[in-house]
Amino acid sequence: MNEIRVGILGLGTIGMGAARILIEQQELMSRRLGKTLRLVAAADRNLDRDFGLDLSEVRLTDDANEIVTADDIDLVIELIGGYEPARTFVARAIEHGKHVVTANKALIAKHGEALFPLAAEKGVAIGFEAAVAGGIPCLKALREGLAANAIESVYGILNGTCNFILTKMENEGADYADVLKEAQALGYAEADPTFDVEGIDTAHKLSILAAMAFGSKIRFDEVFTEGISKISAADIEAVHDLGYRIKLLGIAKPHKDDSGEERVEMRVHPTLVPLAAQIAQVSDSYNAVQVSGDFVEHTMYFGRGAGERPTASAVIADVVDIARVCSDGSADAVKYLAPPMGFVESARKELKTLPIADIRCEYYLRFMVQDQPGVIAAITSVLSDHRISLEALSQKERHATQAVAIVMLTHETTEGNLQAAISRITSLTHVEEDVLILRKESFGA
Amino acid sequence: MNEIRVGILGLGTIGMGAARILIEQQELMSRRLGKTLRLVAAADRNLDRDFGLDLSEVRLTDDANEIVTADDIDLVIELIGGYEPARTFVARAIEHGKHVVTANKALIAKHGEALFPLAAEKGVAIGFEAAVAGGIPCLKALREGLAANAIESVYGILNGTCNFILTKMENEGADYADVLKEAQALGYAEADPTFDVEGIDTAHKLSILAAMAFGSKIRFDEVFTEGISKISAADIEAVHDLGYRIKLLGIAKPHKDDSGEERVEMRVHPTLVPLAAQIAQVSDSYNAVQVSGDFVEHTMYFGRGAGERPTASAVIADVVDIARVCSDGSADAVKYLAPPMGFVESARKELKTLPIADIRCEYYLRFMVQDQPGVIAAITSVLSDHRISLEALSQKERHATQAVAIVMLTHETTEGNLQAAISRITSLTHVEEDVLILRKESFGA
Repeated sequence: MNEIRVGILGLGTIGMGAARILIEQQELMSRRLGKTLRLVAAADRNLDRDFGLDLSEVRLTDDANEIVTADDIDLVIELIGGYEPARTFVARAIEHGKHVVTANKALIAKHGEALFPLAAEKGVAIGFEAAVAGGIPCLKALREGLAANAIESVYGILNGTCNFILTKMENEGADYADVLKEAQALGYAEADPTFDVEGIDTAHKLSILAAMAFGSKIRFDEVFTEGISKISAADIEAVHDLGYRIKLLGIAKPHKDDSGEERVEMRVHPTLVPLAAQIAQVSDSYNAVQVSGDFVEHTMYFGRGAGERPTASAVIADVVDIARVCSDGSADAVKYLAPPMGFVESARKELKTLPIADIRCEYYLRFMVQDQPGVIAAITSVLSDHRISLEALSQKERHATQAVAIVMLTHETTEGNLQAAISRITSLTHVEEDVLILRKESFGA
Repeated sequence: MNEIRVGILGLGTIGMGAARILIEQQELMSRRLGKTLRLVAAADRNLDRDFGLDLSEVRLTDDANEIVTADDIDLVIELIGGYEPARTFVARAIEHGKHVVTANKALIAKHGEALFPLAAEKGVAIGFEAAVAGGIPCLKALREGLAANAIESVYGILNGTCNFILTKMENEGADYADVLKEAQALGYAEADPTFDVEGIDTAHKLSILAAMAFGSKIRFDEVFTEGISKISAADIEAVHDLGYRIKLLGIAKPHKDDSGEERVEMRVHPTLVPLAAQIAQVSDSYNAVQVSGDFVEHTMYFGRGAGERPTASAVIADVVDIARVCSDGSADAVKYLAPPMGFVESARKELKTLPIADIRCEYYLRFMVQDQPGVIAAITSVLSDHRISLEALSQKERHATQAVAIVMLTHETTEGNLQAAISRITSLTHVEEDVLILRKESFGA
């Protein structure tokens, strides 16, 4: 077909961005595509406002059901967000034979595995490039650009709010709570920032990246997740003195144990990255995804991870991809599309997730202790019992309390062994309970 | 078809990498693709050697004509390099109805515009991701991932040899000639390094990127090209003191003049980039392409720009892309492929290249002068005549000669105006002829 008729669910920030591209860049889209993308209809609960865009050619409705069932729509863009009613509308659109494009990471992370077979059955595609790292075409890179590679690791700075906060804490020596307030005032953080700062948003995105990298199923519930709210300005400084920077990373790696069983390691946590690493240079609210493959070595994809215009750019890229291959809107169309996860559906594997206790890392540890003789000796003695050796150790005075911070960098050990040691250390006299444990990653680039 | 039969022309470094992926990653490729990629045949002039890979299932020949005309080959990978005989073999393969994938930037930059219509006529695709920035899937990002955007600028570090030399000069305070020798000893630079260090290789790649970004034709001959061979350790230091780093960049931007005529600016030269810019962090032999679009804002793609394995990764990504859409090998196949330049052929434009005299830049100028009273006054007076104002000026002693280096950073002016001023300045008494002119770019990210 020479015209792809598009409907949008949700005219919020990103919805308006997508509408703007479809209307204002229509000629450019046609030059690229040889087909016309036409915005036919849009649904939003609040239609009584100034959209700042001429929508006179667009059928507006406050009932999303009209869009997902309409006969004159080939592709539905879902930009409602959240689990419900987004899931219901997407499922209904698919059932009515419509391709779907979404920016909804929560939806794909949680319900993708139920929606993909439905789409395959109906011969339609689901595009979700905008769900991970906003405007950056990183899913396309992983799925198609690196198709020749067995993926060895994925590291992502996937949440702009956290990266903004960490950058500002480092640049200004400011504490977490103060910077968070500032980020909220600037609109970079929500009134309830839990989803962002506790790593849940990053975990949604990581679970999608991991499935695409390794041909496994999306297992959001199995991602080990820690946020940035326990990090102090003093930690950032201590880490910097050791030659590192703290970034909230989503990390995914494949494993094969001695018996040949494959597993996937998935974790989200504040991470020490070497100051010279490419990913350490990603500051403010920018996102980046570093993917290493056995042939391509290290690659990195950088850009805006959120915002009306960048996210809409990724949404429309998916629309263009789908429009390129859908010749007649029939069930045949989808077979020309890359399968949504970059692997043929039947070749995807039920890979188990590596338990967090089994991962191997180097660690940054910060203990708060009372400044008594023998405390360091007691701590290092426990570590030694657990065969955890140290790369660095320093003692810093903290101004706000009477306690003293002891900072250590360990050599590699398993998480399980480390946690056992920490548990013994925090039961020592003169050692306070709030230990900060950060994991360190080395980067080839 | 469920099997794509591949032939390789040239079993050099990259050819062996491509063969290795096709053989060693066959199962992974099938999982991703749902089809089998089979290496059927390969041609090389020297077959009497140990390939370090089991090629017993592969028909080997020293006659490339056998491959490009073979009935049992669907897709030919051209890895001979250079203009001829590569062009002849590629044209012949297309005439015989075979898809072509190549890593040959010289070929595409020079002969692409003749080969694309031939391929369209025969209903086959030409893939050349590997021709630009090696393993980095940047053409895919530009063509597909950013399809919703009018592209506002493209900046590329596209030659690993130059980036390696500049990084080493900066890190070690070493001079160009010494570092070049070291790069040659390490195999990073050719015995005759002209192609790399004088910017020609970068210009090949830039001309392809520009055509893809703006939907224009490839105009390699119109790229303004300067290399890095005139840069001294002292320049790198002086630039660093001003807050910049020197990178050899390929730069492409669109222009619209007052009459509405669109033009494209294409230039390759050593460029001052702010130390904090993302692209300034790209060191050693790494490549990166920064693309900014009107919706996506700034994006950057980073990775290995050369080498057996990374380049082969990009070659096979193209093979996978073509295999995904070629259902029956007929002339229909190509219509499902993105047009090679990211624009429908009939929508591509004959955009004129902006003459270099019309570009606007800020400049770094280094004059060698005899230390006489009034020299600086005389120079700045000429600049003032040309309405070129200065942002910074400093005078540095040079050890090797009696002459003194005067370093300046100008505000924005046109290249034509600057060159006119320079020509007057070099005719002044006490000013030597070898002026170094570097252009400065600002970066949003």
